[in-house]
Amino acid sequence: MKTIQVIENVQRANDEVAAANRARLEDHGLAAVNLMGGPGSGKTTLLEATVAELGQDAVVGILTGDLATTRDAERLARLTPHVAQINTGRGCHLEAHQVRHGLDALELEALDLLFIENVGNLICPVSWDLGQERRVALFSMTDGDDKPAKHPYIVLAADLVLLNKIDLAPHVPFDRGRFLEDVRHLDEDVPVLELSALTGEGMEAWIEWLTRSATLAAPPAGAGP
Amino acid sequence: MKTIQVIENVQRANDEVAAANRARLEDHGLAAVNLMGGPGSGKTTLLEATVAELGQDAVVGILTGDLATTRDAERLARLTPHVAQINTGRGCHLEAHQVRHGLDALELEALDLLFIENVGNLICPVSWDLGQERRVALFSMTDGDDKPAKHPYIVLAADLVLLNKIDLAPHVPFDRGRFLEDVRHLDEDVPVLELSALTGEGMEAWIEWLTRSATLAAPPAGAGP
Repeated sequence: MKTIQVIENVQRANDEVAAANRARLEDHGLAAVNLMGGPGSGKTTLLEATVAELGQDAVVGILTGDLATTRDAERLARLTPHVAQINTGRGCHLEAHQVRHGLDALELEALDLLFIENVGNLICPVSWDLGQERRVALFSMTDGDDKPAKHPYIVLAADLVLLNKIDLAPHVPFDRGRFLEDVRHLDEDVPVLELSALTGEGMEAWIEWLTRSATLAAPPAGAGP
Repeated sequence: MKTIQVIENVQRANDEVAAANRARLEDHGLAAVNLMGGPGSGKTTLLEATVAELGQDAVVGILTGDLATTRDAERLARLTPHVAQINTGRGCHLEAHQVRHGLDALELEALDLLFIENVGNLICPVSWDLGQERRVALFSMTDGDDKPAKHPYIVLAADLVLLNKIDLAPHVPFDRGRFLEDVRHLDEDVPVLELSALTGEGMEAWIEWLTRSATLAAPPAGAGP
């Protein structure tokens, strides 16, 4: 009982900070996307491709979480100056207070879109609200078609399911029908997109989803033509 | 302070059960290997290949952990009758009390070797002793060469580092030198083996390690020729 009590307190404190993050982002008219996926699913490569694809159309900020090293931030800093690394030590997910500190490090008024690249993990990040507007669950074709069924909570939490590394389809055992069936069994409506962040295949639909669902570059409410 | 106190209590309780598991396994002369790796790194496929490779040489038992579904146990049960599935719900790792219940479900006196397939996760399983004799960290070539540096604690905890899916080497960006250098930076001595559980390449060295280091089929101490 005691353990549960303490964990509830920690979670409640997190949710309060997440709500403050959300209000702060809304004040800047800024959509934040919490990108969640297993280690090696291609989160950083997807962000590299996304920043390159958006080009001059949008200024992208990125908070990137990892246990150790600043390698992801170094990769991403080649594409946008608006990057901050959050090291979690042994922590298996980002928490709202870490994102709050990350927001302090960014020039929010300069941004059109913010990505929060979570720690590589299909389990822990699901339970922690960071103040994001959307959550994306990234799976990789090389990890097998059974991952949605075996990790149902990330699918249930996601506003979009992405299947990455489809360029490797000829080389790995993967049943697309089974993958999609398992996702649909959990959520009848969540959009599912396939892409290869490495080759660029499928990137248009992902950019289109960002534009439409993450309110990227949307005109201010009430703005006329 | 309170949170840390409670977590320490939980961990201490775990370690006591793990010690009891270890004593129980030793009583049966049974080596247990805690197989840890990210989701989709190929843990179940490796166990399928290992059971097949060992054939008549050893009776293998497997405890397999997952959030949900009994899919891994169903796959493994085609190869050995000594399989039990542990579902952790939202838990990102196995704990010693779950393994204790798993041991109750197996016919320990019939086994020569026990695998504990942990939940797909590079972070959480590291901190939880299950009573195993050896810990193996499984990485996949498709997950990128930066995973040891980004997940140092699993390397530091491992008795063996395995790199799987080397059959995909021609199709993915992966710098073997960098992978090995990062492992060596963390641990100068830990053995590193490469294999493809799918094609069978490199399986001999893995089986040899099991025989030598996990005391598989070792003669009883003091037994003469």
